[in-house]
Amino acid sequence: MSTVQVMLADRSYTIRIQRQCLRELGAVLKGDHGVSRTVLMTTRRVARLHAPELRAGLEDAGLGGAQIEVPDGEAAKTLRVAQRVYDQLIELGADRGTFLVGLGGGALCDLMGFVASTFLRGIAAVQVPTTLLAQVDASVGGKTAVNHARGKNLIGTFHQPRLVWIDPAALDTLPVREFRAGMAEVVKVAAIWDAAFFAWLEESAEAVLRRQPEPLAHAIRRAVEIKAEVVGLDERELGLRALLNFGHTMGHAIEAVNGYRRIRHGEAVAMGMIFAARLSESLAVVASPVSERIANLLARIGLPAAPPDWREQRQAHLHAIAVDKKVRDGAIGMVLLEEIGRATVRPIPPEGLLAGEF
Amino acid sequence: MSTVQVMLADRSYTIRIQRQCLRELGAVLKGDHGVSRTVLMTTRRVARLHAPELRAGLEDAGLGGAQIEVPDGEAAKTLRVAQRVYDQLIELGADRGTFLVGLGGGALCDLMGFVASTFLRGIAAVQVPTTLLAQVDASVGGKTAVNHARGKNLIGTFHQPRLVWIDPAALDTLPVREFRAGMAEVVKVAAIWDAAFFAWLEESAEAVLRRQPEPLAHAIRRAVEIKAEVVGLDERELGLRALLNFGHTMGHAIEAVNGYRRIRHGEAVAMGMIFAARLSESLAVVASPVSERIANLLARIGLPAAPPDWREQRQAHLHAIAVDKKVRDGAIGMVLLEEIGRATVRPIPPEGLLAGEF
Repeated sequence: MSTVQVMLADRSYTIRIQRQCLRELGAVLKGDHGVSRTVLMTTRRVARLHAPELRAGLEDAGLGGAQIEVPDGEAAKTLRVAQRVYDQLIELGADRGTFLVGLGGGALCDLMGFVASTFLRGIAAVQVPTTLLAQVDASVGGKTAVNHARGKNLIGTFHQPRLVWIDPAALDTLPVREFRAGMAEVVKVAAIWDAAFFAWLEESAEAVLRRQPEPLAHAIRRAVEIKAEVVGLDERELGLRALLNFGHTMGHAIEAVNGYRRIRHGEAVAMGMIFAARLSESLAVVASPVSERIANLLARIGLPAAPPDWREQRQAHLHAIAVDKKVRDGAIGMVLLEEIGRATVRPIPPEGLLAGEF
Repeated sequence: MSTVQVMLADRSYTIRIQRQCLRELGAVLKGDHGVSRTVLMTTRRVARLHAPELRAGLEDAGLGGAQIEVPDGEAAKTLRVAQRVYDQLIELGADRGTFLVGLGGGALCDLMGFVASTFLRGIAAVQVPTTLLAQVDASVGGKTAVNHARGKNLIGTFHQPRLVWIDPAALDTLPVREFRAGMAEVVKVAAIWDAAFFAWLEESAEAVLRRQPEPLAHAIRRAVEIKAEVVGLDERELGLRALLNFGHTMGHAIEAVNGYRRIRHGEAVAMGMIFAARLSESLAVVASPVSERIANLLARIGLPAAPPDWREQRQAHLHAIAVDKKVRDGAIGMVLLEEIGRATVRPIPPEGLLAGEF
């Protein structure tokens, strides 16, 4: 059994990473957290694959079988769907002592966290991520969100979970495109924080992609450790945590321009990292070239290098960036690399991004 | 000038209480808080009465004239209205550096706080309350909320404001029924926390009701001090802060059963306090009778003593209480009095409330 701690004073929590751990969650919630009632929130597709084990454990612990299903994917991250979940929580008699358990991918993590943070002014959330992206990124750190017609994640809160429960074996059934997309966030934390981990990924990418248990568990664990460390240093993104947005400024714009269904979040982040790395070079923020190493690793993972129709859509991307959450006083806080393993945030006016390329 | 501090580590803030202070807010935001951009959120009715002074000060400080209007009163506290405010904030180009300034009564405070806490994962909120209820209660302490069809304030967050700006002169134009309703919350904090303040209210009720500047300012200031002290001790209502819910359990039920337009929140709280005081006596929680003193003071203020059609509607009220936020593991945390100035929370199953009367 492997655990990582997120250290945030009275909001500290444990991330457990272990194959086949879903069955045990109920006993741990009951025994270690004194939980007497849970509501499971998931999607129909995820429920079919992973809910039986989790539910059996919850029921063995006497925590009930209440379940709420929401649509799959990014389309479910709306206030309208959140409203339907509130309705069902009230119908189920959920109260302040109820733990909301979210089983699913990144979108489900974001939506479940948002509902948990706003229902009755905040109830306990337990994240059980079932995609690589959710395991290494969305489930850890307490960012919650729903989307607005004008941009992704524009509505949300900070609400740390009480527990994160990661079963790497859940990834065995993950479609290959989703797995590759999740790897983008693994590459991201290595690129901004840990040159040795980046080098390990360069050595081990194929083994991780084959989902060999040991390399896969190592990749998840190290990515989670880095995220936990950064979040512990800067929970509310007043400074350091912004480094985790590496690749995300252009990434969000790519998603907005192309539609959330056509391009996966991780794919957009991969392209955004290449853009940001090249921009780091053209603005002379890096000492030596980094974009080739990043682009090569991402290519080996099978991630796209540039958005479709970039030349025609350049203005649309820059317009999408102008409504980004990270704009402040007219400039965007852009994460750039100083070298592999070290990043910095620079305020750049949106037109300054024209210096970037893929 | 009179100020009260809410002590919450890095979320501490100042409450300023001063007649005719609206004009000065802009200069203080600019000078003391380094604000470069504000959006004013208010209602049409309040804007007509109080916005000119406030806007003039904001504009003199170069903080812009952006304004969002929402409907008046409790009816505006919905996700639908919040969604429209998000739309307008994005349209106005609001970013993470923008301060959202809420000018209005309790409902506006709650809604503005909710929007500020969820827009871009939280932007700064400044409360400028214009009713007595909002000045002594809703604007202080960081509780935000919108309503759900099934109950009041079921959706919300904790989000402390950066500054609370109270002009007692704004109450000169407050309708007498609203003023009396606000007095219920003043009586409440005295009843649970400060016997001397309760005795002062018994002496000074008529002078406060005539809105004589000195007694009025004292009543506001002492009520705000008590609320600030309680919130500083227990921001998230894990214990002590629940005492501020005195009168609110039955109060919320009365509002739900009778409709939020027919009965003012303060009127419902007044009735709820009488119910809770009588229940404290019938459960022998108090050493000596308290309900007569409370009922007498509330009657002098001109507040109602019992909900209409209580006998016929008793079951409906108990049903409304069963979905209250304060229910946990099947029992409601009911605030009862031990004496004037001292309160306690007791878990009581909903049927235990049948021992109560008005």
